[in-house]
Amino acid sequence: MASANAEKTELTVPVTLSSKPKKDWILLSLRILAFMATASATIIMALNKQTKSFVVATVGTTQIKATLTAKFHHTPAFVFFVIANGNASLHNLVMIAMDIFGRQFDYKGLRLALIAILDMLAVALASAGDGAATFMSELGKNGNSHARWDKICDKFEAYCNRGGAALFASFAGIILLLIITGMSITKLLKPNRINHVVP
Amino acid sequence: MASANAEKTELTVPVTLSSKPKKDWILLSLRILAFMATASATIIMALNKQTKSFVVATVGTTQIKATLTAKFHHTPAFVFFVIANGNASLHNLVMIAMDIFGRQFDYKGLRLALIAILDMLAVALASAGDGAATFMSELGKNGNSHARWDKICDKFEAYCNRGGAALFASFAGIILLLIITGMSITKLLKPNRINHVVP
Repeated sequence: MASANAEKTELTVPVTLSSKPKKDWILLSLRILAFMATASATIIMALNKQTKSFVVATVGTTQIKATLTAKFHHTPAFVFFVIANGNASLHNLVMIAMDIFGRQFDYKGLRLALIAILDMLAVALASAGDGAATFMSELGKNGNSHARWDKICDKFEAYCNRGGAALFASFAGIILLLIITGMSITKLLKPNRINHVVP
Repeated sequence: MASANAEKTELTVPVTLSSKPKKDWILLSLRILAFMATASATIIMALNKQTKSFVVATVGTTQIKATLTAKFHHTPAFVFFVIANGNASLHNLVMIAMDIFGRQFDYKGLRLALIAILDMLAVALASAGDGAATFMSELGKNGNSHARWDKICDKFEAYCNRGGAALFASFAGIILLLIITGMSITKLLKPNRINHVVP
């Protein structure tokens, strides 16, 4: 049905616009989805905090408690994760705005190449953030007996669960970003993207 | 001297090959450099191992020693780092081979798009590996007082120094890979890459 409609409209619009609208809507909705995924990963991780009281000693019948707080910014990898995913969210917002308002600013297809390169850089940064946070979370969950680093997820369950949710959202975001970058690259292949090539 | 030679040969070869050799040599040498950087990162990290004896107790005049070994595969992040950098090395080798032997297998410029997408995927994986290993090394160097994870680099200096060297090599590799991917993307912009567009 959709392809039939697209063919119908193709007959009425000028040639230079013929194949653009359909693909751009897919890309635009993927960008919105990716934005939502990375933005929620950023927010969940940035608000992640758990305060818990532990009984450290018992004097007679009085319990001496220590209150410990687990916060995302205690771990540099999670701070980097927030920066990387925040950057990916911002990148997708700017690209959506560029797609809607910036179509007239084009010079020999350089706009599309710039978008593809910026997409690639956003992927690289988001991927580094995900890698860092994933392995730091794994350490928090399982510990490392060789380095004598104990797991902390047995004490801070809620903190770890929220961190896991943030990681899950960012994984969805990075997969969408990879697809988006692949589409940005293949867009460069279209013969009609360079104005002077179109007859 | 080199550019003068390139210009001389340009005058003798057919038009369809005229602009290719110069840029490809830059890309090819960058790929070789990137391969060397990621391959050395892989090897340094994979061979990273330090065995050390610690005095754990003294009974009378007899010292009781414990021998501890720090190995890269005790830390999942370093295993991932080795896989990611190994993959980047292999990718660059395959791309170099494809550039030398695979020029005739092209269909409407899809070869170049495939190279750009594969470059981008290699960047994403290598970047994740670097992110994971960097923050795990930072933890080994500084520890994390909030999680009660003590630093281990005061005990295993040689292990940490070699790990730092591997990280340094992989950073050089990822920067080269980013430049290579950017070049792969801009290559798609050339009007003569699609055979049927060239008059």
